[in-house]
Amino acid sequence: MLVVMQSQATAEQVRHVVEQIRALGLTPHPMPGPTRTAIGVTGNTGAVDARGLQLLPGVRELIRVTKPYKLASREMHLEDSVVRVAGTTFSAEGFTIIAGPCSVENETMLLKTAEFLAGRGVKLLRGGAFKPRTSPYSFQGLEYAGLELLAKARAKTGLGIVTEVMDPSQADAVEQAADMLQIGARNMQNFALLKRAGKSNRPVLLKRGISATLEEWLMAAEYVLAGGNQNVVLCERGVRTFADHSRNTLDLSVIPPARQLSHLPIIVDPSHATGRRDYVPAMALAGLAAGAHGLMVEVHPEPDKALSDGAQSLDFAQFDKLLTDLRRLADTLGRTIQ
Amino acid sequence: MLVVMQSQATAEQVRHVVEQIRALGLTPHPMPGPTRTAIGVTGNTGAVDARGLQLLPGVRELIRVTKPYKLASREMHLEDSVVRVAGTTFSAEGFTIIAGPCSVENETMLLKTAEFLAGRGVKLLRGGAFKPRTSPYSFQGLEYAGLELLAKARAKTGLGIVTEVMDPSQADAVEQAADMLQIGARNMQNFALLKRAGKSNRPVLLKRGISATLEEWLMAAEYVLAGGNQNVVLCERGVRTFADHSRNTLDLSVIPPARQLSHLPIIVDPSHATGRRDYVPAMALAGLAAGAHGLMVEVHPEPDKALSDGAQSLDFAQFDKLLTDLRRLADTLGRTIQ
Amino acid sequence: MLVVMQSQATAEQVRHVVEQIRALGLTPHPMPGPTRTAIGVTGNTGAVDARGLQLLPGVRELIRVTKPYKLASREMHLEDSVVRVAGTTFSAEGFTIIAGPCSVENETMLLKTAEFLAGRGVKLLRGGAFKPRTSPYSFQGLEYAGLELLAKARAKTGLGIVTEVMDPSQADAVEQAADMLQIGARNMQNFALLKRAGKSNRPVLLKRGISATLEEWLMAAEYVLAGGNQNVVLCERGVRTFADHSRNTLDLSVIPPARQLSHLPIIVDPSHATGRRDYVPAMALAGLAAGAHGLMVEVHPEPDKALSDGAQSLDFAQFDKLLTDLRRLADTLGRTIQ
Amino acid sequence: MLVVMQSQATAEQVRHVVEQIRALGLTPHPMPGPTRTAIGVTGNTGAVDARGLQLLPGVRELIRVTKPYKLASREMHLEDSVVRVAGTTFSAEGFTIIAGPCSVENETMLLKTAEFLAGRGVKLLRGGAFKPRTSPYSFQGLEYAGLELLAKARAKTGLGIVTEVMDPSQADAVEQAADMLQIGARNMQNFALLKRAGKSNRPVLLKRGISATLEEWLMAAEYVLAGGNQNVVLCERGVRTFADHSRNTLDLSVIPPARQLSHLPIIVDPSHATGRRDYVPAMALAGLAAGAHGLMVEVHPEPDKALSDGAQSLDFAQFDKLLTDLRRLADTLGRTIQ
Repeated sequence: MLVVMQSQATAEQVRHVVEQIRALGLTPHPMPGPTRTAIGVTGNTGAVDARGLQLLPGVRELIRVTKPYKLASREMHLEDSVVRVAGTTFSAEGFTIIAGPCSVENETMLLKTAEFLAGRGVKLLRGGAFKPRTSPYSFQGLEYAGLELLAKARAKTGLGIVTEVMDPSQADAVEQAADMLQIGARNMQNFALLKRAGKSNRPVLLKRGISATLEEWLMAAEYVLAGGNQNVVLCERGVRTFADHSRNTLDLSVIPPARQLSHLPIIVDPSHATGRRDYVPAMALAGLAAGAHGLMVEVHPEPDKALSDGAQSLDFAQFDKLLTDLRRLADTLGRTIQ
Repeated sequence: MLVVMQSQATAEQVRHVVEQIRALGLTPHPMPGPTRTAIGVTGNTGAVDARGLQLLPGVRELIRVTKPYKLASREMHLEDSVVRVAGTTFSAEGFTIIAGPCSVENETMLLKTAEFLAGRGVKLLRGGAFKPRTSPYSFQGLEYAGLELLAKARAKTGLGIVTEVMDPSQADAVEQAADMLQIGARNMQNFALLKRAGKSNRPVLLKRGISATLEEWLMAAEYVLAGGNQNVVLCERGVRTFADHSRNTLDLSVIPPARQLSHLPIIVDPSHATGRRDYVPAMALAGLAAGAHGLMVEVHPEPDKALSDGAQSLDFAQFDKLLTDLRRLADTLGRTIQ
Repeated sequence: MLVVMQSQATAEQVRHVVEQIRALGLTPHPMPGPTRTAIGVTGNTGAVDARGLQLLPGVRELIRVTKPYKLASREMHLEDSVVRVAGTTFSAEGFTIIAGPCSVENETMLLKTAEFLAGRGVKLLRGGAFKPRTSPYSFQGLEYAGLELLAKARAKTGLGIVTEVMDPSQADAVEQAADMLQIGARNMQNFALLKRAGKSNRPVLLKRGISATLEEWLMAAEYVLAGGNQNVVLCERGVRTFADHSRNTLDLSVIPPARQLSHLPIIVDPSHATGRRDYVPAMALAGLAAGAHGLMVEVHPEPDKALSDGAQSLDFAQFDKLLTDLRRLADTLGRTIQ
Repeated sequence: MLVVMQSQATAEQVRHVVEQIRALGLTPHPMPGPTRTAIGVTGNTGAVDARGLQLLPGVRELIRVTKPYKLASREMHLEDSVVRVAGTTFSAEGFTIIAGPCSVENETMLLKTAEFLAGRGVKLLRGGAFKPRTSPYSFQGLEYAGLELLAKARAKTGLGIVTEVMDPSQADAVEQAADMLQIGARNMQNFALLKRAGKSNRPVLLKRGISATLEEWLMAAEYVLAGGNQNVVLCERGVRTFADHSRNTLDLSVIPPARQLSHLPIIVDPSHATGRRDYVPAMALAGLAAGAHGLMVEVHPEPDKALSDGAQSLDFAQFDKLLTDLRRLADTLGRTIQ
């Protein structure tokens, strides 16, 4: 931490700040400069809330330095983490595809989609049983019946299942049916849910909150890691900005810094970000080129009849085309589609 | 809903869109114009997801019209709602103050604060027992022991208690200790929690999500109202923008449209928004002048020793000064401080 | 400036960074801590671009400390600046109103408005002759003929004139007709225009750019001040955020920090911010309560027939009502409407 | 345009709105629905400001439909525009690189860079002579002397020159020295400059404003096109969001809708967007994969000694590596690096 004094701060004011820093159990390092004094502060391991210093007389600004995440940080874990799910992995060498419908709607459409994907070499099936919906009047998912259909699809095709858990009370059931627990953007700071996920033996797919900074996102991962579950995959799914040309703004520029600051794998979800299937392929290819470790994408046998988010779902032919393009691009980049 | 066709769309394309609208069970109203045709769509009561129309050949854009909230809308409830909590009310004629520490830290500080506030005529005491913290390593609140202290403060001073519930599993206990359930910004779209709050017999203080639109906020209120609980008070607590001069940007400009579109009372929380106690009084006065129905503000006997958010808490003298200023301003505006 | 090293940085890497800091002519202050070393840097007067340090081996982050504005800073000018325009002043004791139509449309409407305002004790008339319009097909203002009408209104009523200059080539003419040069939000970083304004003998009303930070805004003021013109008034007119309930988000929360960091007066423009006249009065009153030094507000004799921005203009009766409310509020706050 | 009435609006109120629409010279199309009436409005060619309708009694909301750009719209120009600059082109089949230093610093470094780039097959050289700088105390560029150096580099290497013009008064000189006029992000709505560019015989590179919507960006292009200059290339250079992991957020998601709504070529500038050279290559590759028509990238012989923005400049070896990667990716995508 750094305390920046005003240029007209008195020696007495500087001394008082130095004492207050010591009173917090921290170590002050005063640095007199030509126009002002700054005071470095070391020794804070995160437990002390020192924001009160900024209100002391003569203080201009308080600047926080230490990043508060530890287990999610590359500083603590130099190598890339490799997360294994149902026989496949998320890693820097691969590019792992999670595909399937937005919602589990019925057995027929789910199995049809699962069989199609399995036939194409995809290893992980997505499908929402519990659906977070802005409106209480929208379709809320098949819930527990949806989990049963997912389990049936797994049994029939061997695909690993990725599905959302919205509340700790659903977690046991979701762990039964799924190979990977998805935590949605709206729940990125649902701390009760994060703590529950930290105790799970299932890997966690943690979507970025709709206006979360990279630091907040890694802190949310830290809750899971600190709970004992080391298998977290980040998923960028679009953030909220002033822009109106896209449902959300897919922030591909977060990929290089996320990979630099953290060892966790990171994938992209262009379906939710763009909200339109005709924009999905370009963003999926760009995600691969930007260094993402994988892709979550919505696929539906008949998108125009989907109960939710049909506009952003690819049909089978569109997915086939995208998969071919991804394979060619991955080859060029020395990566392998999983 | 309105479907806007491209200027070069063919008559055949227009006809196809009209048919698709009918196939969804809706009524099309084609409006040919000098450069393009637009097609009004009526009959959608919210159940149909018609976004797929925007991908039909010849369609330029799909514009949603109907606001999806009903019970929260002033259209369904022309008069202002008056919400009663522990013998006081939130209404357009009053200006209701909720004050107290960020966290319940111990019995001494809580009772000292409660007695001070009761002596000043404040009716509602805030204090967090369950604390949503970005870091898993920060103080997470006294939890159930904190609720007991709040109940004790209520018994001793007669103040109504407002405290946060973070998870449905805590709701029974919070309902016991508190007169009003607070749902925090990070949980504004925790739908399991909203559904639980809808079944509560306690009024709900619903904070705006950190990047929630007014529509999303009112939809979150709709979850509570649709569950059967008609007593919801909105709380603006700062939104996330590009600005860095304030922890969050207190969006006072949301007050006039919120009051126009909804009948629910709305209050402001300048403590969380600004993050600095020296900015709190100006924003509290501005909130009153802007038409808010009340104020949530942090007060602590010794802010510099607070376990959380001390930098944004007023001490007793500062609160006294603010209260005097608010009373004078309220008099001028024909309002009454509650 | 502060260079934060990675926790695993070697002693050699720290030494290399220290040397590079010295090579830039700056002074390094290494501060070893329990988990990492940070290196304070003093001696930078703004001329050195040291961002390259962040790419050296072992560096985690570079944190800039010194605020780059000088003349706009309260550190260099402890007292509030009082800016005089045409016989009135912008100061902390007063609350100065600039009112008038969005655009100068014709002589009749301009004189009618000017006489109305003068009769109500308003001292400053606004009216756009050069209009920045998003579309090349929209009304672009009467331009030089509009300036003549403003000069005529000044001659007839004695009101001071505030009008926008969009390009250095228009500045001589605007200085003739106007008492205060307005620089619009879109031109806040038109540096050629700022430099020209720095050479003007007219005070400058500097609107905040639509997504400008407070620092960038004060740096834009710094261009004018550094050019030799000490008379700058800031004007908050709404910023761009994700919110859609208002044309822009009027950022009243910028007022306390702007007044703390700078000595320059600051006013608010709720007409452009909200875009709707029914939201203007609440935001004007809130601006006064928040500590603004004045108000810019659109008034039109017949808003529904305005050539631009009629929806956000008050008619005469609405302005009268607002003025009465502002006077009562100002009395309570110990301020005087100018 | 669509006027949405309140659900409780009376028949009289609907009739009044219909009359007001006619009074504006427009055509109303009332559409009664189960809960409310909406009124379609046709016939507005952009000249009428009808926002006043939203304030009429019984009106709930006014929704604008017509996009105001014409010449920039794909509706008026179905084929992709191909823009020719100095013997090369911007087109969907190619991927055109503009490279060079942030600023022209001196003859030696400029020629060295130009010769290096020419040797690698690059056709267009960037370099700022006039530099928009946030601080008046920062290096402002060599100005006219810088233009002479650019002209010299062109003469010596045959490279086309792309450089920024900040003010109409500089335009004649920039047209002499350069093959393409760059308009910077801060000037995207400097309408005097856009009008001057519309009269130029040089192609224009129009950077997106730092918080410009796609519509505003295309409207800025419309100013140039409406002035008679049909050669405009769009350049995405990062927008302002809440995110702090990158200097700006490179909005690659704008590429598909920009290409869908407009016929103009669009390129990306990852140097300014990220502000860090180690993030530039990933974003450049992602831009190509997302469908951009080209790349603007900063290259400097000794980035650590650059007078501006050295931290974001690639050195020669880094550029070589990026160029190799781009060529391989372009081959895979059926595109040709220009």
